Amino acid sequence: MSESTDDIEILIALMAKLPGLGPRSARRAVLHLIRKRALLLTPLADSMSQVAISARECLNCGNVGTSEICDICLDENRANGELCVVEDVGDLWAMERAAVFKGRYHVLGGTLSALDAIGPEELRIPRLADRVTAEAINEVILALNVTIDGQTTAHYIADQLQGQVKLTTLAQGVPIGGELDYLDDGTITAALRARKEI
Amino acid sequence: MSESTDDIEILIALMAKLPGLGPRSARRAVLHLIRKRALLLTPLADSMSQVAISARECLNCGNVGTSEICDICLDENRANGELCVVEDVGDLWAMERAAVFKGRYHVLGGTLSALDAIGPEELRIPRLADRVTAEAINEVILALNVTIDGQTTAHYIADQLQGQVKLTTLAQGVPIGGELDYLDDGTITAALRARKEI
Ligand SMILES: [Zn+2]
Ligand SMILES: [Zn+2]
Repeated sequence: MSESTDDIEILIALMAKLPGLGPRSARRAVLHLIRKRALLLTPLADSMSQVAISARECLNCGNVGTSEICDICLDENRANGELCVVEDVGDLWAMERAAVFKGRYHVLGGTLSALDAIGPEELRIPRLADRVTAEAINEVILALNVTIDGQTTAHYIADQLQGQVKLTTLAQGVPIGGELDYLDDGTITAALRARKEI
Repeated sequence: MSESTDDIEILIALMAKLPGLGPRSARRAVLHLIRKRALLLTPLADSMSQVAISARECLNCGNVGTSEICDICLDENRANGELCVVEDVGDLWAMERAAVFKGRYHVLGGTLSALDAIGPEELRIPRLADRVTAEAINEVILALNVTIDGQTTAHYIADQLQGQVKLTTLAQGVPIGGELDYLDDGTITAALRARKEI
């Protein structure tokens, strides 16, 4: 791109790596940032530097936050005996937006996958059984995506925990192939309310 | 958003101000950034800080670059007597992507608008006549968007320069209501090649 100089080209190339932005929209975003230098570009640079330093995974549940143990795990009001297992942090955020679940979460960090050689040890699965005991959990809600890998993972976990705790999944209502993070809040709410025992 | 802590909420809110990203895609982008901390988040923060310091408008043409006079204005090979007038830097970049124009540019920084009280002095219009003389321009190509404000502005500039220099516009081929920045390179190339005298 001979039309802009090095610093700006580098920024455009980096912005184009964000999900949802292609090369053209990255250029548009960079022009917008340069026009809004004081209002947006500098605050965004500072905010990113800050998050690069402070963001961390909760040691207990895998949620992303800025402390060793996240706000949800620290909130005693959420120690209601319900634990919701999700694939990733985006799914946890989607559940929180629906604002219907009042318990705690366990973020696996992916799904089991023979193809990609991802076994239970690569995920946050071993820790799950410990939490069930330590936090006096009486219901584990398996809120995994309705995909082949998601359901394989749910069955694996159900096998591990069978007999120790009540196991439920979100109700049908999550469309086949659907991912939680893309669902509207109402669908998530309905699916949680109508959850059934495995 | 009770699900994430302050630093991360602030970053999501700032990212949502970028064109093309809504609140949901901003959250998705921030999660992606946190996952790719060393590879993307830190480099992006550094790049933004750098651009916030170094980006500036070319004093001659209004292009965005990192020096007082931009690369195009400094390139003697582009002093071919042709000057292309565009509304904003995005349009200049679109022309450069088409790689068909070999002269220099003049970026107005917007269009005349009675409604928004934008007159010639608010744009880079007064400087245009000076450049025609100083840079021995023999053709001014008015490559403004085919919108009411764009065409009003083109007519105003044509009136100002009439008799001093050859005036052309891009050929019909730019769709009505179309903005240069959204056109494919081929359309821009064809429209420039078939440009006609006003
Ligand atoms: Zn936690
Ligand atoms: Zn210039």
